[in-house]
Amino acid sequence: MATQTSADDIFKEFKEHSISQFFRKNSQMLGYSGRVRSLTTVVHEWVTNSLDACEEAGILPEISIEIKELAEGKYSVRNTDNGPGIPPKLVGKALATVLAGTKFHRYMQQRGQQGIGAAGCTMFAQITSGKPIRVKSGTGKQAFECDLTIDIKSNKPLVTNSQEIGNSFKGLSVYGEFGDVKYENSDHGIYEYLRRTALSNPHCSIKLTEPDGKEVAFPRSISDVPKRPKLTKPHPLGIGTSDLLDFAHSSASRKVSSFMVDTFTRVSQNKVDELRAIVKDVDFEKEPKLLTWAEAERLVNGFKQLKWIAPDLDTLSTIGEEQIKATIKNILNPAFMSVVERKPKVFRGGIPFVVESGIAYGGSAGRETTEGVKGTILRFGNKVPLLFDGSVCAISQAVNSIDWKRYGIKDFDQEPISVMVNVSSVYIPYSGVGKQAIAQEPEIIEEIKLSVMDCARSLQRHISNQKNINMQATKYNTIMRYVSQLALNLSEITSEKKESIEKGLKEVVEKRYRKLVDEEQKSADAAAAASDEAQQEEAAEE
Amino acid sequence: MATQTSADDIFKEFKEHSISQFFRKNSQMLGYSGRVRSLTTVVHEWVTNSLDACEEAGILPEISIEIKELAEGKYSVRNTDNGPGIPPKLVGKALATVLAGTKFHRYMQQRGQQGIGAAGCTMFAQITSGKPIRVKSGTGKQAFECDLTIDIKSNKPLVTNSQEIGNSFKGLSVYGEFGDVKYENSDHGIYEYLRRTALSNPHCSIKLTEPDGKEVAFPRSISDVPKRPKLTKPHPLGIGTSDLLDFAHSSASRKVSSFMVDTFTRVSQNKVDELRAIVKDVDFEKEPKLLTWAEAERLVNGFKQLKWIAPDLDTLSTIGEEQIKATIKNILNPAFMSVVERKPKVFRGGIPFVVESGIAYGGSAGRETTEGVKGTILRFGNKVPLLFDGSVCAISQAVNSIDWKRYGIKDFDQEPISVMVNVSSVYIPYSGVGKQAIAQEPEIIEEIKLSVMDCARSLQRHISNQKNINMQATKYNTIMRYVSQLALNLSEITSEKKESIEKGLKEVVEKRYRKLVDEEQKSADAAAAASDEAQQEEAAEE
Repeated sequence: MATQTSADDIFKEFKEHSISQFFRKNSQMLGYSGRVRSLTTVVHEWVTNSLDACEEAGILPEISIEIKELAEGKYSVRNTDNGPGIPPKLVGKALATVLAGTKFHRYMQQRGQQGIGAAGCTMFAQITSGKPIRVKSGTGKQAFECDLTIDIKSNKPLVTNSQEIGNSFKGLSVYGEFGDVKYENSDHGIYEYLRRTALSNPHCSIKLTEPDGKEVAFPRSISDVPKRPKLTKPHPLGIGTSDLLDFAHSSASRKVSSFMVDTFTRVSQNKVDELRAIVKDVDFEKEPKLLTWAEAERLVNGFKQLKWIAPDLDTLSTIGEEQIKATIKNILNPAFMSVVERKPKVFRGGIPFVVESGIAYGGSAGRETTEGVKGTILRFGNKVPLLFDGSVCAISQAVNSIDWKRYGIKDFDQEPISVMVNVSSVYIPYSGVGKQAIAQEPEIIEEIKLSVMDCARSLQRHISNQKNINMQATKYNTIMRYVSQLALNLSEITSEKKESIEKGLKEVVEKRYRKLVDEEQKSADAAAAASDEAQQEEAAEE
Repeated sequence: MATQTSADDIFKEFKEHSISQFFRKNSQMLGYSGRVRSLTTVVHEWVTNSLDACEEAGILPEISIEIKELAEGKYSVRNTDNGPGIPPKLVGKALATVLAGTKFHRYMQQRGQQGIGAAGCTMFAQITSGKPIRVKSGTGKQAFECDLTIDIKSNKPLVTNSQEIGNSFKGLSVYGEFGDVKYENSDHGIYEYLRRTALSNPHCSIKLTEPDGKEVAFPRSISDVPKRPKLTKPHPLGIGTSDLLDFAHSSASRKVSSFMVDTFTRVSQNKVDELRAIVKDVDFEKEPKLLTWAEAERLVNGFKQLKWIAPDLDTLSTIGEEQIKATIKNILNPAFMSVVERKPKVFRGGIPFVVESGIAYGGSAGRETTEGVKGTILRFGNKVPLLFDGSVCAISQAVNSIDWKRYGIKDFDQEPISVMVNVSSVYIPYSGVGKQAIAQEPEIIEEIKLSVMDCARSLQRHISNQKNINMQATKYNTIMRYVSQLALNLSEITSEKKESIEKGLKEVVEKRYRKLVDEEQKSADAAAAASDEAQQEEAAEE
């Protein structure tokens, strides 16, 4: 046996590390893998922040993105918005500290939810170009510029070259230089990212200046500011024992009963009394700080036995049926489309979410490839396009699990079809830190499936109508050719005028024919509905 | 327009968060998603740590895992090893602090590389069962027991109920209780995880006690301690500008020239002189602390123009060709197998890695399903089985991109074939924190593809031999039936004995037949080699 090394020797090398050191070493986990994806990730993070800031401040967003090629593999990106800006004393923490921000701890639907993205951009700039990012911020009260880097060992911001610039600028402008990146007009490139952002944010005006100087505008198609995301409290059904204890132990309420009313949505004094009747062995008068694990477990089990009003709809901000229709029409101009927004559901017991979906068919729907047009899935999480890691995403899994043949689509991959799905929630369970795929929670997959099948039902009718119309047109033309010949022959036998015989015959045919058409339509509809119902039942049973 | 909210109001809610708070909220990113996967993740983290500790200490590992069902959805896990143990003063940091450990900052091939896994288990125990983990550790000098939890807000360990227990126990035993989990004997379950761990760690003895009390043993198939992972220095070709600056700014060397010799592998004084001849505008006598980005960039570009000896093989610890063969035979007992270990390569310029692969065909190879046996890919990173997220893994992508028809496999998904791939490196670029898939680095994918194709070439010969043997056996039997009949007829005409005629005829046939068999074999081999060469060239060009 080889000589052994002791624990003391091994643990001489024991050290602690900062989260920024971790992501510096594993930047692929933030989306910085591959030259094209890395550049798209920068734009994704900055645009997401701009949209969130504008939405929270109640401002109609105007965002411009300028990309320049500095050298082979080196590009600069400037992102400018008309949002609320960042106060000077917080700009370092907001853009150059990993895991700091306003979003992580609040129950509010926003695109960002971690406090990692913007700091990740700053770090990616400094480790690939050696340069700080340049920030210009105007809050309306003050405007200033500064350079920012992260001290990676300590995860602290370094602010330099700070200067006030009067009060002419309102909003936030961020400029960075990046190495190991590439601008490419592909499915995973910035152009496509912004096109999809425009699709899911019709209230937003986006301008892109490409490296070759070409300017692309995605104008807004509606001028309503989306309702501000509403801060909410957690729903009792979304709470585990450990969550309840965390809330209780940091609560300022005097009693367990008032703590529950103060902390959760949908909990009234009456509800607490209902709970008290079920959960006998917990003292509702004691201080919440003194709650034990066993007691909290009993309360959580008690929650599950009560009837609850569904979580508050107001906390969820969707794109909206009309808006989706308008933008699908603008961008894909399909021969057919169907859009469905379903009611909010919950996952993991009580976290509310809502699914919107749309199907576009024909026109510019689908994805152009060298082998022809293919079916495509446009994925969105809180209105943010998800361009990467589709194979592990709940949306792809749901759409791919649908038996498309039942809806008249022989091979999803070979048809001009776009399926768009947006999942909105106060908390979207992303599968990775880079937030490009939604984790495969069964409730979310089922709801997406039902929603897309809802659209697919309309598509099925459209396709079967098209088929019927084509078939009927063929039949009709065939019959009419016979009618004409028949009229000629009858005219010769009876010496009546061909025209009048033909007219009479045509009337008879038209009358019978219309009736036939209606009947065929009805039976096709019924067959479609039956097939769809069968699949819906299967989905619900899964 | 809606009323606007100011930056000051928005940023009132600004907060910083700890890495443990982040992973408590996003535990799915650590692998805690789904009941079965969550329980497997616990075992994965603890077993991985045991194997690393034993390897570093030079101990032949004996690991036992005991799973008990406590209630519906609640299980306990105990993992006991005979490793070096953890010194008392570090046990809290090692098992209950996210991002602390001995692995993150060292250039050494180990299974763990982040300092997240074990702390993740502790956190998962406390948030699903409310209970600390119970640790027993013996270093040979001291043995003790204690309870451990993480203070999630501060990411600090809380050690309670600590007591010395004499010196009878050597090793580490960790016990935890977990909610929201499930034991299941499936492709993603603990049994399969340990079976694959045994496959890739033939020196390890593993015992599993299942919840129903059944004991399963995976005995070791070799008794050599694997060579201890060697600490190495980074190779100059694996270094970016930012890395070089980081090293330079924290270096104790007096001059840039000596700093380079001290910091990197394969850099001699001669190499520095070669570099000096190419990179004119850097002062090699100045202090490394004073190196600028521009200078570091010039040095990195200079590195690329020099010829370098390949990275040190000793830093890479593989399973080994013979060991893989032994375990494949033990576990899959296939009709055919082929194993290949290729030379180390580098990715991202200079991070060394090595690929081992094996193909098993027939016998118990492949994956049993209700629809029959299917082809399967067994993925390993630094000898650790990767059970999840296969669809985004470099290994799957490489194996699926092979044109299997060229190797006699008509449909990979329908044949009794197992392809095993182990990637070893000081740094494996995992796609997520949960370390279940290798990021799709082009150099890694290409090398895996070449390695598997190497094995597939032997498989092709085997399959074509089998076909020939079958075909020839049929021909031979047919001819021999005629020979017997012919001998009878000749015997009747010539009055010679049938037996002697038959013997003569058979000798003639045998002689001719053997010659034919040899020729057919040669031409089949030549065709296989030509087809494979064509694909290898294609792969190398990609």
